[in-house]
Amino acid sequence: MANSNKLKDSFKKTTYKLSQHGPRNASVLKEAFEAVDGDLESDIYGDGAVIENFQDKIAAFLGKETAVFFPSGTMAQQAALRIWADEKGNKKIAYHPLSHLEIHEQNALKELQSMEPLLLGTAERLLTMDDIRNLSEPVSCILIELPQREIGGQLPSFAELEEISAYCRNNGIRLHLDGARLWEVTPYYQKSEKEICALFDSVYVSFYKGLGGIAGAILAGGEDFTAEAKIWKRRYGGDLISLYPYIVSADYYFDKRIGKMGEYYEAAKDLAHRFNACDGVRTVPEVPVSNMFHVYFEKSAEAIEPILAKIHAETGVGCSGYLQEKPGGACGFELSVGDAVAEIPVASLDQVFEKLGE
Amino acid sequence: MANSNKLKDSFKKTTYKLSQHGPRNASVLKEAFEAVDGDLESDIYGDGAVIENFQDKIAAFLGKETAVFFPSGTMAQQAALRIWADEKGNKKIAYHPLSHLEIHEQNALKELQSMEPLLLGTAERLLTMDDIRNLSEPVSCILIELPQREIGGQLPSFAELEEISAYCRNNGIRLHLDGARLWEVTPYYQKSEKEICALFDSVYVSFYKGLGGIAGAILAGGEDFTAEAKIWKRRYGGDLISLYPYIVSADYYFDKRIGKMGEYYEAAKDLAHRFNACDGVRTVPEVPVSNMFHVYFEKSAEAIEPILAKIHAETGVGCSGYLQEKPGGACGFELSVGDAVAEIPVASLDQVFEKLGE
Repeated sequence: MANSNKLKDSFKKTTYKLSQHGPRNASVLKEAFEAVDGDLESDIYGDGAVIENFQDKIAAFLGKETAVFFPSGTMAQQAALRIWADEKGNKKIAYHPLSHLEIHEQNALKELQSMEPLLLGTAERLLTMDDIRNLSEPVSCILIELPQREIGGQLPSFAELEEISAYCRNNGIRLHLDGARLWEVTPYYQKSEKEICALFDSVYVSFYKGLGGIAGAILAGGEDFTAEAKIWKRRYGGDLISLYPYIVSADYYFDKRIGKMGEYYEAAKDLAHRFNACDGVRTVPEVPVSNMFHVYFEKSAEAIEPILAKIHAETGVGCSGYLQEKPGGACGFELSVGDAVAEIPVASLDQVFEKLGE
Repeated sequence: MANSNKLKDSFKKTTYKLSQHGPRNASVLKEAFEAVDGDLESDIYGDGAVIENFQDKIAAFLGKETAVFFPSGTMAQQAALRIWADEKGNKKIAYHPLSHLEIHEQNALKELQSMEPLLLGTAERLLTMDDIRNLSEPVSCILIELPQREIGGQLPSFAELEEISAYCRNNGIRLHLDGARLWEVTPYYQKSEKEICALFDSVYVSFYKGLGGIAGAILAGGEDFTAEAKIWKRRYGGDLISLYPYIVSADYYFDKRIGKMGEYYEAAKDLAHRFNACDGVRTVPEVPVSNMFHVYFEKSAEAIEPILAKIHAETGVGCSGYLQEKPGGACGFELSVGDAVAEIPVASLDQVFEKLGE
């Protein structure tokens, strides 16, 4: 990333941002704890009202029997896959080539779990029912990420998901949902979290992406599954004496933002439309299906960085703090809409796209 | 544990406590963040001033090159042992039969790491230089816990530690310190943390036991070691986007209490002396070598629980919320001295031991 510090600095100095909910700083924690009584008892190694109530609340919301709070999705999903692998006595599982487990976890599934992941389909597109049907070997579990983040947050149709779910059930394959951004896809599907989760045997959801909490994840499923998950949480060193800093803030931002996903989705579609109206700029997907999409420029990062930095300085609106080089001399960045976009004055936003159009 | 809810309830209702620093509740977090500016930027996946500065501070304090903040000691120590096992190409490591890794981690070393732990010595006593000399097979690493918590917080002499350290260096064995309660043993050894850590290749310390933070651990060692540790932290799902709730509080309570370990140690010796003066009561060790010890009663939990519950109600001083059955119809509990003991009015404390003496 050429000149990335210059771009990063210009982004940091902007008053407004296209992405996210605002700065990730201590005020996120302070706001969540402001109304919390100091007498609120800590959870203790997974027990206590603060963790149990939240687990019950999210389990009910997702329509699952039980749920376990984890410090991270990385830990939660490795646990889930191992549980299903053990159940079937088969260490082979399958997922998209750009799954978080494949590209962001330092090969943990192999190094820690001796699992054998098979890759479904190809990196640049969604995995399909056909990819699953054509699997060369039996797998214990398939993981599907909704939306598939690394390709701009794309989604299969709900009908295809239903088909995949039925196929897995008929063929003794467990289906796990990487729902890192599950909340964010309900407006597009016009389905509740419950309706989506009903297609999966186990579900991971996150509290710091669309919801804007500090960190933390929930793994939900049947009673036997979560009992096993608690053992794996202990093994991974995730069964902390106190997880309440994450739980209390997850709960606070869940209540604050769970009803705003439609608003973020509409704003994402509007922004993508504006980007696509600029010469040499396009978004993936062209029409977003969640609050996120990727923005691609036909030119290199070196060419685009000064343009973005200038827009940052002149409009006070931050588009991105980085640009990633792409094949063919192109570049791009990821955009996830949250509370921040609504704070941008209309005139400033118009100015951004006028300048980008030039 | 017979009647344990009655004892637990009577303990909870007491105004004062022999153990710890006070209740584990949200005020612990609120106190730590009170003076923190809301603009303080979060760490992001292990980077940023808030995590890097604290890692540097603790590395320097322990006299190690570098340090990594982990959410838990469980995760940190499994990472450490794996790194040394990989270095030596030998999955055999050795530790005390009551090591945390052996009894509190759901067999994680075997299930996650395929490691082969050898047990040094026997459960009821400290491991010794002789146990190490008599190891039946070569090991890559030996883990020593100072103090050995499960036997009341006992310590080898510093001279024996030096001998073990020299032996390991001469025999190509890495020596890892489980320093969950390292801060607490410096007054007895009359050595600094640096002097103790100099005997070990890698060191884990905790921030919620003697120091009373919320959770969190540091793993310290050479540069190559901590670079590897960061990879394992990612694999374990411990590389959270934000660990600052634990880091800020760890730093706050480190500064607040690191100078008070001598005070806790003296109070522990005084309390143990008072327990030992009561008929049918003894402590292990008889004279504490840190802020902790175990209290044993000659009679069963069933016999002792009503006595303790009565003392709780009559004196307002909590001794313990539980009693663990011990062999031979005895029972006992663990006591770790912190800030709480200094708040007990002298007359109330005297009353506790008068009643216990009866």
